[in-house]
Amino acid sequence: MRVLVLNGPNLNLLGEREPEVYGAMRLSDVEAALSSLADDLGVEVVISQSNSEGKLIDALHDARHTCDAVVFNPGAYTHYSYALRDAVSSISIPVVEVHLSNVHAREQFRATSVIAPACAGQIAGFGLDSYLLGLRAAVDRAREIA
Amino acid sequence: MRVLVLNGPNLNLLGEREPEVYGAMRLSDVEAALSSLADDLGVEVVISQSNSEGKLIDALHDARHTCDAVVFNPGAYTHYSYALRDAVSSISIPVVEVHLSNVHAREQFRATSVIAPACAGQIAGFGLDSYLLGLRAAVDRAREIA
Amino acid sequence: MRVLVLNGPNLNLLGEREPEVYGAMRLSDVEAALSSLADDLGVEVVISQSNSEGKLIDALHDARHTCDAVVFNPGAYTHYSYALRDAVSSISIPVVEVHLSNVHAREQFRATSVIAPACAGQIAGFGLDSYLLGLRAAVDRAREIA
Amino acid sequence: MRVLVLNGPNLNLLGEREPEVYGAMRLSDVEAALSSLADDLGVEVVISQSNSEGKLIDALHDARHTCDAVVFNPGAYTHYSYALRDAVSSISIPVVEVHLSNVHAREQFRATSVIAPACAGQIAGFGLDSYLLGLRAAVDRAREIA
Amino acid sequence: MRVLVLNGPNLNLLGEREPEVYGAMRLSDVEAALSSLADDLGVEVVISQSNSEGKLIDALHDARHTCDAVVFNPGAYTHYSYALRDAVSSISIPVVEVHLSNVHAREQFRATSVIAPACAGQIAGFGLDSYLLGLRAAVDRAREIA
Amino acid sequence: MRVLVLNGPNLNLLGEREPEVYGAMRLSDVEAALSSLADDLGVEVVISQSNSEGKLIDALHDARHTCDAVVFNPGAYTHYSYALRDAVSSISIPVVEVHLSNVHAREQFRATSVIAPACAGQIAGFGLDSYLLGLRAAVDRAREIA
Amino acid sequence: MRVLVLNGPNLNLLGEREPEVYGAMRLSDVEAALSSLADDLGVEVVISQSNSEGKLIDALHDARHTCDAVVFNPGAYTHYSYALRDAVSSISIPVVEVHLSNVHAREQFRATSVIAPACAGQIAGFGLDSYLLGLRAAVDRAREIA
Amino acid sequence: MRVLVLNGPNLNLLGEREPEVYGAMRLSDVEAALSSLADDLGVEVVISQSNSEGKLIDALHDARHTCDAVVFNPGAYTHYSYALRDAVSSISIPVVEVHLSNVHAREQFRATSVIAPACAGQIAGFGLDSYLLGLRAAVDRAREIA
Amino acid sequence: MRVLVLNGPNLNLLGEREPEVYGAMRLSDVEAALSSLADDLGVEVVISQSNSEGKLIDALHDARHTCDAVVFNPGAYTHYSYALRDAVSSISIPVVEVHLSNVHAREQFRATSVIAPACAGQIAGFGLDSYLLGLRAAVDRAREIA
Amino acid sequence: MRVLVLNGPNLNLLGEREPEVYGAMRLSDVEAALSSLADDLGVEVVISQSNSEGKLIDALHDARHTCDAVVFNPGAYTHYSYALRDAVSSISIPVVEVHLSNVHAREQFRATSVIAPACAGQIAGFGLDSYLLGLRAAVDRAREIA
Amino acid sequence: MRVLVLNGPNLNLLGEREPEVYGAMRLSDVEAALSSLADDLGVEVVISQSNSEGKLIDALHDARHTCDAVVFNPGAYTHYSYALRDAVSSISIPVVEVHLSNVHAREQFRATSVIAPACAGQIAGFGLDSYLLGLRAAVDRAREIA
Amino acid sequence: MRVLVLNGPNLNLLGEREPEVYGAMRLSDVEAALSSLADDLGVEVVISQSNSEGKLIDALHDARHTCDAVVFNPGAYTHYSYALRDAVSSISIPVVEVHLSNVHAREQFRATSVIAPACAGQIAGFGLDSYLLGLRAAVDRAREIA
Repeated sequence: MRVLVLNGPNLNLLGEREPEVYGAMRLSDVEAALSSLADDLGVEVVISQSNSEGKLIDALHDARHTCDAVVFNPGAYTHYSYALRDAVSSISIPVVEVHLSNVHAREQFRATSVIAPACAGQIAGFGLDSYLLGLRAAVDRAREIA
Repeated sequence: MRVLVLNGPNLNLLGEREPEVYGAMRLSDVEAALSSLADDLGVEVVISQSNSEGKLIDALHDARHTCDAVVFNPGAYTHYSYALRDAVSSISIPVVEVHLSNVHAREQFRATSVIAPACAGQIAGFGLDSYLLGLRAAVDRAREIA
Repeated sequence: MRVLVLNGPNLNLLGEREPEVYGAMRLSDVEAALSSLADDLGVEVVISQSNSEGKLIDALHDARHTCDAVVFNPGAYTHYSYALRDAVSSISIPVVEVHLSNVHAREQFRATSVIAPACAGQIAGFGLDSYLLGLRAAVDRAREIA
Repeated sequence: MRVLVLNGPNLNLLGEREPEVYGAMRLSDVEAALSSLADDLGVEVVISQSNSEGKLIDALHDARHTCDAVVFNPGAYTHYSYALRDAVSSISIPVVEVHLSNVHAREQFRATSVIAPACAGQIAGFGLDSYLLGLRAAVDRAREIA
Repeated sequence: MRVLVLNGPNLNLLGEREPEVYGAMRLSDVEAALSSLADDLGVEVVISQSNSEGKLIDALHDARHTCDAVVFNPGAYTHYSYALRDAVSSISIPVVEVHLSNVHAREQFRATSVIAPACAGQIAGFGLDSYLLGLRAAVDRAREIA
Repeated sequence: MRVLVLNGPNLNLLGEREPEVYGAMRLSDVEAALSSLADDLGVEVVISQSNSEGKLIDALHDARHTCDAVVFNPGAYTHYSYALRDAVSSISIPVVEVHLSNVHAREQFRATSVIAPACAGQIAGFGLDSYLLGLRAAVDRAREIA
Repeated sequence: MRVLVLNGPNLNLLGEREPEVYGAMRLSDVEAALSSLADDLGVEVVISQSNSEGKLIDALHDARHTCDAVVFNPGAYTHYSYALRDAVSSISIPVVEVHLSNVHAREQFRATSVIAPACAGQIAGFGLDSYLLGLRAAVDRAREIA
Repeated sequence: MRVLVLNGPNLNLLGEREPEVYGAMRLSDVEAALSSLADDLGVEVVISQSNSEGKLIDALHDARHTCDAVVFNPGAYTHYSYALRDAVSSISIPVVEVHLSNVHAREQFRATSVIAPACAGQIAGFGLDSYLLGLRAAVDRAREIA
Repeated sequence: MRVLVLNGPNLNLLGEREPEVYGAMRLSDVEAALSSLADDLGVEVVISQSNSEGKLIDALHDARHTCDAVVFNPGAYTHYSYALRDAVSSISIPVVEVHLSNVHAREQFRATSVIAPACAGQIAGFGLDSYLLGLRAAVDRAREIA
Repeated sequence: MRVLVLNGPNLNLLGEREPEVYGAMRLSDVEAALSSLADDLGVEVVISQSNSEGKLIDALHDARHTCDAVVFNPGAYTHYSYALRDAVSSISIPVVEVHLSNVHAREQFRATSVIAPACAGQIAGFGLDSYLLGLRAAVDRAREIA
Repeated sequence: MRVLVLNGPNLNLLGEREPEVYGAMRLSDVEAALSSLADDLGVEVVISQSNSEGKLIDALHDARHTCDAVVFNPGAYTHYSYALRDAVSSISIPVVEVHLSNVHAREQFRATSVIAPACAGQIAGFGLDSYLLGLRAAVDRAREIA
Repeated sequence: MRVLVLNGPNLNLLGEREPEVYGAMRLSDVEAALSSLADDLGVEVVISQSNSEGKLIDALHDARHTCDAVVFNPGAYTHYSYALRDAVSSISIPVVEVHLSNVHAREQFRATSVIAPACAGQIAGFGLDSYLLGLRAAVDRAREIA
């Protein structure tokens, strides 16, 4: 089983960007922790990041043939990208939306996800743990289907 | 370490109530799965349910002295109970909001949580797994603080 | 056949409370008229009232095993209690929402019922007759199902 | 005592139109059932239908001299015809708004009635029974006044 | 003359709960200060608290026979409990709404009170003084009526 | 010069309908007063009324060849008939919107006119005088154009 | 195969009415062009216009027995006539909504069609071509069904 | 009988300011026309203008002892000055709101008058004629009262 | 200690203006009662009124050097004067907002105060007592700071 | 004459993606049908697809020198891409917006197109036919201009 | 060339008022810096401040004869003074709106300027520099026109 | 010191695109003018343009190491790109938002910038001057920090 962990805009700056909101950990730390958990769960993870909405759509499309599930942090695209929502609806593997921060406790616009209705579910607010919990959820969903 | 798993209105009917939305599992199945995971994590879980907003507030208040974290499914109170939100803000232990169904993909009113801004984070859409992931998140948060 | 007539907040003060809106009749008068009509229809009525949202949920849950239908006046909970709406959705017997006053002709907030979408239908504006018409509707619905 | 049962747009197609929403019964079935109940209640019913807003206003105006009450299903005019609302306000006999389907459980726009504030009350969701309950309510109102 | 001082949800945690918002004083301090002022004004105060919306309604109902006025801090129920608003409307003794914090200077939802329209008036923002000023206002109102 | 005075729904009941809002004068009184003023102004008035939106559109269309201006009281169609607005835009003679009552001081929906943007102007709140002032305004506008 | 081309309010003034918006062509020009295309497509067209909402509903009802499809320009009724929407839903033949002007590029209220959700589709902005394209679409839809 | 004609902000620039909207006539032309009509009606007019909200309130207050009616063009204060609305409500003589331009046909914010609900009525869209018609309306209203 | 009691628009007409809302007492009565209470509290009061937003801002500015606190009734400016809100924020002495009537129980627009977020708190609904309670609150706040 | 047929996000998955909404036909089928019609009309079509908003803008820019018209299905960008709207406005050749599904009959957000106001017109709901009708409309528009 | 630099409410307290938002510089510092830049640009500046909306309107009116451009900081009037907007529209010289703070990054109501649509442009967020940049912009605009 | 001047979608067509809105000057003219001013200010400017949201994010990220400030015209992304807002927040060098046209005086959607809250400030409406003023502001900000 293979899981794509897909990161949206600005997540390449993790650790450097607004550390009081997103913490000091870098994307490579997230990768390390995910790889370790993946080993425990007996699955493979592929990690990718793009600032481009179009490339994120491409990545979701590609995943439908190469992966069994997706853990997706759409960054700020969460709040307006109906194109990403349609991309999630277009593929049949489960997609789990994750957020580092508690999006419900920040600016008003961050409380709405236009992508979540097309996902299996959403996990938000637990920092690095959001990814780890998301990986568990994605694997469980994929195993249910398989 | 001790974690309260608190269930709000109508969750006593789990398994019987709208199974096409909430699944066939009963609250006792949730309890069994949580106990098993709690053993793995080396923590204790206490599980409670009430249909009364006031009693849920009381339970949150009590937990501040007797527990280290809360996994909370506020049911439909999620969408309007500012009193429960204040109760969560009133206590210093971490509270993780969980939902069985993907609340973002159902009726419009279910996409808004007035309680989540006061919680550590929110997990929605994974059925029984929402509770299990919630327990992991709650334990991690409590360990960070301790 | 047995029908629960369930009354929500402030209806215990019927006859005393804002008589220019709700009339001079007391809850016991409603009971008497309902009992008389129940005899005519060959059914049994059980009448209950609570100011507590939680107890009203409990009463709806209990009714699923003990009654065949419910005539429900949710009082002001009508306008915000998604928990009561879920309770109505949780049980399979028909629930008829009734109101003494014409809720459409009063303050703006009274025109919206968050509970009605889960009910069989709604009757509003006919004073005591709302209950009597509601009992007829509830019995008819229950007989259709039976 | 004489009661006008007035039907608005598209109700002439009853039984043929969207039977999954409105049922298989035809307007003539409604008439038969109403006539039978009218006999029991010792009143006369006159039944009329028009697709034209203006003719429905005319019919309400005429009823003020020839009838004692009105049972009115305004069809989709319910949701925007302030002219029909004013027509109801213009006449002093009681008007009872009825709907076959539970308008609160369908599209958002059907939950609002701009006519109901001018009526004695509203009954919705009980199919043919909505008319029969509406006739009872209208007769009771008219007898109170007389 | 007897005045009920009724406290809503989470006020039992006063002094412990969010002290940067609500201050360090406890409910017992409020009681002591109120008793002292009550002596000066020649009235008796009865102080009560509940987290349950239903019990607060019951308490308001009971007060109509046993008290001459109410000082009421509805906590977060202020913002959505139409049931408490109706309870205030149901009794004829004056009710004064009080808040410790300046509800107009906090989150958007706290600026709206659905209960205040049924009260004699509202006092907000003065900490303990809100209660003391509220007691004076309640007593003056009750004396005007008596 | 010839002016059409066109009246919309329910105005045939003037004098009988809600006299506390619209006064005791009948449409024939309006006609008499308008005829008298028309004589003073040296113009001819034609007065018409219909409850039907379609016939009011027809009347506006006809007026473009037979009249020089229109005084138009659209009744409750004022608030939603975009079809009447388009009819007014379709003809090149000036149309003056008039209302008996002060539509700004009644229900919220009456403060909005969807027709007025296509008219020369609007006069509201002066009872019979609204028509007389409207006739003066219409004649002046028509004379400016001629 | 027979197609009804149904025109709503003010379209009888086409060519004369606001030519800068709707062009200089008259309804008879539309008819000629449609007849010519109908010949090419081997179908018959029947063209009708009414300013009355009720008569448009009647025409749609009649078409269900006499025609195979409808090309419908509801004029300004597009934006508020839920009765016409229900009429379209009431009949099983395909209805194609057409507009001469680009309704999305004009006043805000013209961007919303309450009728389109019940139609097969919508074509707007191409002047006479909107009708010709609409006829092609209607014929194709009817042929798919047949 | 004496009538105050009160002009709000920017009306001192009449004739110079945006002549395509407000016309080429100056405030002195308005005064001349009003004086002439006042002579015909046998009344006295006093004309005043201020850009200051406070001075307009003062002028309305003063008028309650020195005038019998007011013709009031509040300029842009129309759309937000609740203080001027309260000033109109504070005095018992009739106030007629007038506007040179058709406020319903311009920017959205100009369609709302917060002052009109406290006035006798409103006249808008007839340029200089709005004042002359307003004077007639004000005199008639004052004579009815006297 | 010196307290400014500042009154906004239309309060100069107190006792004469809408007595059914504001009571029969005049501003001089308010002054007398305030002076008497000021003596009891050992403070000095200065009372001022203006209908001009600009002069009220000036008065607040001046108070920062000459007074220790302000009791402020902004009248209808309460609902839209962000300039007065900024003036309150600009000075460091405590400002207490007071209203004679229960602004929450009147027209919708009166329930919103744009000034209160910058004040220490708000007291509304107690007639003359609103000022007396406001003086107590202002003095207490000023003493806390001093 | 040359026409660009430009497809937005997720349309590369046509036939595979949500076939119950978009049908079983693939983008290559659309191309074949368009080529065939293009031959009939004596024009050339160029077909392109991209998931990237930026590349779609580039494609529109390029078309202004190389093509005479555009048939554009912006996919989900329809509902929020003001950048694409500006791109359409930036070029002088006609652009026709097309949609496979009836966007008015799906989720609320799909009923709004922010791009359509800058296009010649919009065609929605006819599956493959939407493209074919769009090609006809685009060619006609381009021929009118040429 | 002469430029009016006009300051609205509370700007007289600059340097003293909320220095964390507006900085420590005083209005006289602004004046000094503006004078210095004016010398460089070869223009004359006149600086004025008022807390009164009416006086600011007067100042804008006067400037049309005495100045060539205006740099205008309307303070909190920015957000609701349609009267100032109309004053800007009433004069033909260019007006540049400036703000010290970044109004887009503060409370929601500060993000809307009702005056800016009538100005040449808006500059916000650069403290003293907002004025200096505004002066450059105003001079350039005036030179373009001259 | 080095300043990035970053241009968003459609700005490559400057001079050709809607010249009545954006003027006749081309992007190369903007570059020339900026270079000239940069020389005067003793700084270096780098100018870049992209139609792709993702590439604009990349460019902002890159600038954090290579430049001291950014002058940013986000084009239509201004109104919805929360991803660009987050990119601006992610870097610590000052970003100044500029617009050629007065965005407050055009369509409603252009008055809102979701990016401005993360910028140092905003300059709009001065054509080429918006860039020149923006460069001055950016340099000043960067010098303050340095």
